[in-house]
Amino acid sequence: MVNEQLFIKMGLEGWNGYLKRAGDLFNSLTDEQLAQETAPGKNTGTYLLGHLIAVHDRMIELMFLGERLYPELDEPYLKNPESAGLAKLDIPTLRGYWNTLNEKLAADFANMKPEDWFARHSAVSEEDFAKEPHRNRLNLVMNRASHIAWHYGQVLYLKVK
Amino acid sequence: MVNEQLFIKMGLEGWNGYLKRAGDLFNSLTDEQLAQETAPGKNTGTYLLGHLIAVHDRMIELMFLGERLYPELDEPYLKNPESAGLAKLDIPTLRGYWNTLNEKLAADFANMKPEDWFARHSAVSEEDFAKEPHRNRLNLVMNRASHIAWHYGQVLYLKVK
Repeated sequence: MVNEQLFIKMGLEGWNGYLKRAGDLFNSLTDEQLAQETAPGKNTGTYLLGHLIAVHDRMIELMFLGERLYPELDEPYLKNPESAGLAKLDIPTLRGYWNTLNEKLAADFANMKPEDWFARHSAVSEEDFAKEPHRNRLNLVMNRASHIAWHYGQVLYLKVK
Repeated sequence: MVNEQLFIKMGLEGWNGYLKRAGDLFNSLTDEQLAQETAPGKNTGTYLLGHLIAVHDRMIELMFLGERLYPELDEPYLKNPESAGLAKLDIPTLRGYWNTLNEKLAADFANMKPEDWFARHSAVSEEDFAKEPHRNRLNLVMNRASHIAWHYGQVLYLKVK
């Protein structure tokens, strides 16, 4: 009963679950709500949406799935804090990027073979991977599920009861 | 290379990582800071600490590891929102519970055999588990890692830069 397919199902469950929760939350918030700070002096919902897109977009190259869609998001949403005041994209554009990227990743994931999930991601060298085989693509996706949860909890503060 | 041991390592990595991050964060905050709301009108750090302890304490029975240590935390920190105004434990007591519980779970996890991780948890019936074998104890721990991350992101708002 314990096999690769079962592991893959377990590993993807958290990713799919939190991606859906976060997507539903973003959809339930108006542009005006998203533009608010999630707490006084803390990141806005817009910044966190851009941040999640940038982090997920990087997964394309980390998982050898081709070229990234939105590398221009790294500077304003990943490499710099919101307080750096870099120019941000407008919210409808970010919402579109979120959907397009999720569709691409879902399609790519569906095409992956079981053995692909247990192959190394590009941030680990072949040498290191030989010693640390847990640093594979499925593990990357599992880590990203918790990363979504982290910011999901913060964006939730924009929700009016 | 893909075997049960590898997947157990992958599944526990997120749990151990976020438990450490959350523990370090709680330790870095004074009792006065923890007692603050994480955002205006939102849960205090104290409530979230109690909430995480209650959720993790429930894992003892869910994973067939014996009797729970702190079932009395369910009412004030799990079944009721903070706004219900139920009597809360003092912060030093909660800090002690957090450490004791983490030590117990770590010791119990270390004693589990590989096959134990892929056995059902108590919230799924034997019948359902036969159809859904991914609902095992390792999966429960993976889900709890993301749950820690969710609240970690909120407690982080108490941190003064």
